[in-house]
Amino acid sequence: MSQQIARASLADVQQPVAEELERVALELRRIIAADFPIAAAVNAHLLRMKGKLFRPTLMLLAHQAAGGAEPRAVTLAAVVELIHLATLVHDDSVDHSALRRGLPTINALFSHQIAVIMGDYLYSRAIIELVRLADLEPLRVFARVTNEMTIGEMRQLEAHDKLSYPEAQYDELIRAKTASLLSGACEVGALEAPLAQREALARFGMRLGMAFQIADDLLDYTAAEAVTGKPSGLDLKEHKVTLPLIAALGAMGPADRSLVAELMAAPEPSDELVAGVIERVRAAGGLDYARRRALELAQQAEGELEALPPSRARDALRDSITYAVDRPS
Amino acid sequence: MSQQIARASLADVQQPVAEELERVALELRRIIAADFPIAAAVNAHLLRMKGKLFRPTLMLLAHQAAGGAEPRAVTLAAVVELIHLATLVHDDSVDHSALRRGLPTINALFSHQIAVIMGDYLYSRAIIELVRLADLEPLRVFARVTNEMTIGEMRQLEAHDKLSYPEAQYDELIRAKTASLLSGACEVGALEAPLAQREALARFGMRLGMAFQIADDLLDYTAAEAVTGKPSGLDLKEHKVTLPLIAALGAMGPADRSLVAELMAAPEPSDELVAGVIERVRAAGGLDYARRRALELAQQAEGELEALPPSRARDALRDSITYAVDRPS
Repeated sequence: MSQQIARASLADVQQPVAEELERVALELRRIIAADFPIAAAVNAHLLRMKGKLFRPTLMLLAHQAAGGAEPRAVTLAAVVELIHLATLVHDDSVDHSALRRGLPTINALFSHQIAVIMGDYLYSRAIIELVRLADLEPLRVFARVTNEMTIGEMRQLEAHDKLSYPEAQYDELIRAKTASLLSGACEVGALEAPLAQREALARFGMRLGMAFQIADDLLDYTAAEAVTGKPSGLDLKEHKVTLPLIAALGAMGPADRSLVAELMAAPEPSDELVAGVIERVRAAGGLDYARRRALELAQQAEGELEALPPSRARDALRDSITYAVDRPS
Repeated sequence: MSQQIARASLADVQQPVAEELERVALELRRIIAADFPIAAAVNAHLLRMKGKLFRPTLMLLAHQAAGGAEPRAVTLAAVVELIHLATLVHDDSVDHSALRRGLPTINALFSHQIAVIMGDYLYSRAIIELVRLADLEPLRVFARVTNEMTIGEMRQLEAHDKLSYPEAQYDELIRAKTASLLSGACEVGALEAPLAQREALARFGMRLGMAFQIADDLLDYTAAEAVTGKPSGLDLKEHKVTLPLIAALGAMGPADRSLVAELMAAPEPSDELVAGVIERVRAAGGLDYARRRALELAQQAEGELEALPPSRARDALRDSITYAVDRPS
């Protein structure tokens, strides 16, 4: 986002729901508890790599901003984090990823088999917990969202021409893969609110989620890796086409395009090749384009918040946009 | 089962619900329909390998036997088959199996990645369909059952001493892995029935399911493989400990036990070694013990049917026991 806007820290964003978030962590622990050894070991590891609870934060802020004060919001917030965790465990297994948040992934630390089964275990625990709340509405939202996420994952695998990947298809992918769960979190937070607020918050989460994923994809081109001090370019190494490259390809000359083609054809692209493509993407304006697009989505998200009355929670939701787009990692 | 009881064919068992089963196949097709290429290809393959619809058969018979006549029973029966399919897709992926019902598995024909994602896709479609029926009761049963199935899969992976595997642990495993879904199918078929009938049918499904799995485990020791004409011993090759071996170990002398230990220590046991262990298991009475145990469970299942009024559907449920225990493959 533009330089004029002050950065918001995650602590600022979480401040209005800080007490609830502590209870979310306890709820999460309760829900995934297992009395057989491997699952207990896997759960302990997952709780250690527990992230920033960004999705529960959004749900609780949406709940508060829409005037809700339901005790079960904490449980629903734990469920949204649980669904996120289940998805990560399967995604890491599908991608053969070795690290997540600086810790070994479940597939790396235990095995591929255990990752598949534990993902199923966590997801079925989430469904059990939703059924226990005896309300079909959150179930309806989360069932739709998890189905969309699997479709997003599948689209990512589908063969496509890496050099002419349409931006519309990228949008569809990040909506399904990332934004749908953030949207679902905001919507479920506001299930008891008037329909206009519920729908505005669902759209807020969708726009925010898309901006969040574009910012993530940009980091792969810009964030200095700890060891080398250079951008990791991990997506490029794995032949993943994201918005900076899509935007740059339209502006590239034949020489640059053939360098990209060379990278996409190399089973294991060298660091030089990756660094070269990152430089051409930057020169062709791919990073600027992606930044502008994230900013556009951020502004759309901010606009949706006008449907809500002023409150600290609404301010925090506004700050969450800055956090999502400007976060350093 | 004993020779005196006439064998029941699957067609006999399915006769009272034959018309509904045709609609189950159509419902299944509708529920898993997908508009993106890979999923459509995977679904087409799954529908080709579609099994005998044994779980939908049990649900529809339980429904009819308990006096039900709900149109949504057909949809619920499709959902139970869908949950079964989702489980198979992940199980084959976890076990690296190449064949299922004589056709290549999803992981073999497509990839491991696609198997993981498609299992998630199918399961989330099942949940969406259950939410659409707007009734928490079937959701409650199936959420519990799918969670139990993941726990069963996990227990199967847990390290244990293959030479002193307690029968109680085997019972727990086959309850979770196989019997819970058959029990859930029968219970959901009878959700509208008086509690005594619902509970009797749930117990019926559990006993039947355990007998079904023991019969399956016995086939690995007895059924002649098409090519070699000898028992496949596939479970033993993969170091899977099932009831015939558990029972035999208690009666084996040191020489036989050390042959079993040799097999369990061999990364890829030879056909001779497998055939040798099968012969010792037979000689030590392991097959007879497993047959007696299956018969005992079959009789317990039959006893539960006394809670129901006489009907063609109840007769067919009785025949389903014979089918489950005596089936040739």
